[in-house]
Amino acid sequence: MKLNVTQENLSRALSTVSRVASSRGSLPILSNVLLKTTNNQLMVAATNLDIAITETIGAKIDQKGSITVPARLMQDFISSLPSGTLLLEVKENKLFITADRFKSTINGLSAEEFPTMPTLDGGSTLEFTSKEIKQTLQQVLFTASSDDARPVLTGVYINGENKKMFIAATDSYRLAEKKLKKEFSGSPLLIPAASLTELLRSLKDDEEVLGVTYDEQQARFSVSGIEIVTRLVEGKYPDYKKLLPSTFETTAKLTRQSLNEITKVSSLFAREAAGSITLVVDEASSEVSISSIASQVGENTATAKATISGSATITMNSRYILDALQAFDGEEIQININGKLDPCVLTDPNDDSYLHLIMPVKS
Amino acid sequence: MKLNVTQENLSRALSTVSRVASSRGSLPILSNVLLKTTNNQLMVAATNLDIAITETIGAKIDQKGSITVPARLMQDFISSLPSGTLLLEVKENKLFITADRFKSTINGLSAEEFPTMPTLDGGSTLEFTSKEIKQTLQQVLFTASSDDARPVLTGVYINGENKKMFIAATDSYRLAEKKLKKEFSGSPLLIPAASLTELLRSLKDDEEVLGVTYDEQQARFSVSGIEIVTRLVEGKYPDYKKLLPSTFETTAKLTRQSLNEITKVSSLFAREAAGSITLVVDEASSEVSISSIASQVGENTATAKATISGSATITMNSRYILDALQAFDGEEIQININGKLDPCVLTDPNDDSYLHLIMPVKS
Repeated sequence: MKLNVTQENLSRALSTVSRVASSRGSLPILSNVLLKTTNNQLMVAATNLDIAITETIGAKIDQKGSITVPARLMQDFISSLPSGTLLLEVKENKLFITADRFKSTINGLSAEEFPTMPTLDGGSTLEFTSKEIKQTLQQVLFTASSDDARPVLTGVYINGENKKMFIAATDSYRLAEKKLKKEFSGSPLLIPAASLTELLRSLKDDEEVLGVTYDEQQARFSVSGIEIVTRLVEGKYPDYKKLLPSTFETTAKLTRQSLNEITKVSSLFAREAAGSITLVVDEASSEVSISSIASQVGENTATAKATISGSATITMNSRYILDALQAFDGEEIQININGKLDPCVLTDPNDDSYLHLIMPVKS
Repeated sequence: MKLNVTQENLSRALSTVSRVASSRGSLPILSNVLLKTTNNQLMVAATNLDIAITETIGAKIDQKGSITVPARLMQDFISSLPSGTLLLEVKENKLFITADRFKSTINGLSAEEFPTMPTLDGGSTLEFTSKEIKQTLQQVLFTASSDDARPVLTGVYINGENKKMFIAATDSYRLAEKKLKKEFSGSPLLIPAASLTELLRSLKDDEEVLGVTYDEQQARFSVSGIEIVTRLVEGKYPDYKKLLPSTFETTAKLTRQSLNEITKVSSLFAREAAGSITLVVDEASSEVSISSIASQVGENTATAKATISGSATITMNSRYILDALQAFDGEEIQININGKLDPCVLTDPNDDSYLHLIMPVKS
């Protein structure tokens, strides 16, 4: 292998793919990044066997070839170099990198020892704009479970109903669902949240198209020269729609900022109670108040004005409320409550495309 | 105690003093912050027995008194409140805090159980501008030792010679010395670097005067309503001036940015060798080059153009060079070398007020 690339392109590709290279696994070569010439381009790739990321960049190829080198060293090194053209050359499993005033040798391993990158032939396809899927992932990803005890809950669930696409995630304590104005038919798709976290890092706030191709085992995301191939999560997703109440006895509408403020202040006093706070909606005083559960350190009650119908008291984890409020971007928020043992649902009164459900704490 | 303060003032004072309150010590009350009325002001104070910090803020006092409350909770809570006036009231070792829409109680401990804040009567005095001492501390503090095995090296040493004041610190591997255009006579002063780190956090880049009062055991710093009292380090500081070479066989002058760049890149290959790199000054080629010590992962040589007199090779810890380069602010840097076992001294060719000495690694 012998080729020229720009420092900028190589550095960007390394930072995209290196994140999945890990030195923790049992296979040392998985901490390496694969460099491989392909049709006058350079393919930069890494995998942790669950996810494989590839970025293909422009290069002037003098001689075809491939090598794998330690991902972290390679990334740190290339990103430290000044911008300009780099000469990359492979001789006997060593990568020689030459720039204007820099000469380096990195000891590598043969690309033949690297796992075969997964491919996906045929399958169904979907398209999103980068901006739309980025916002959606920011709204639902954090509610997926990180606990492997129930693998299905570590996935993000894409399903269709009435010519709409729904993207949902839940860790069984809270649930987020986004509705997209898009048709989705066929079998639902369950994608590991960890893979979507990698995808999210590569998405920009623009109109570029993200293509998704999938079959029953795998999905491939393609955007801006980057390809991410991930296995899908196996198993049946819970029928979460049954959990979503269709009517509410009590609703309170207030500014998102004030709910955030009173929750945050009360959460400081709820540390011993694992974050439990009690939310009271009082129609008579037109106030929402949040108190911390009585604790050794002290106690707190904070109130905010609200437009209220019905009265209710519910105990919840303050962290879940704070997380949820981050996922909205409107100025107002609506709190929807039935009984104290029923889920509380947060919505934006001016936008019905997103809902966030929080299970109460039994108090 | 019953008083009004603004959220802004109380929050600032808590963030200044709370840093020294620690829950790690053997005395639980040291994790508390002391609130005490004093002459129509509120004194906010904390101590770890080595350092005591006090900030006095304006308050409308209705009733004198005092209390101590957990520093972290109090700071987090007050900083979460919206700006405005707060009512603070003490009843039976409980602090009641009331703001517009917030009502809190924090359980405290009596101020009588709090250690007496140290005082300093008489003693010598010094004055600095906030800006000048801030820059000096940023240049020397990081070279003080954090290892209690040799307590004197955990101090910063202020001494005088020829109507100049010198402020120096060393961990025996490197040494920084700043020369100030100020007279200093009398016995040298050895101040714990940890206390100066606290002081540094309170200093602004302005012309405000920092007053220092000291005797043989303690020093007190006063600036912008903040007082820091620290014990001094006991023991005799090494006669470091003997270490400073007066002439050099080899000098190289280059831009600080290029020395930083070539050191940083080579340091990536020096991780296995604990950061050791070899610096070569070559008069014939007018180049300074830095190579990483041969390692398992690979090797690197990086070069930069320089104005050179004499040739030399020396092995040093790359982290010390990178740290030192941060302490300079000029565009150019001069490397001064004698033998490969003698200290290397970095200076600014256009400013002789600061020097940074690095001991070589025996290679």
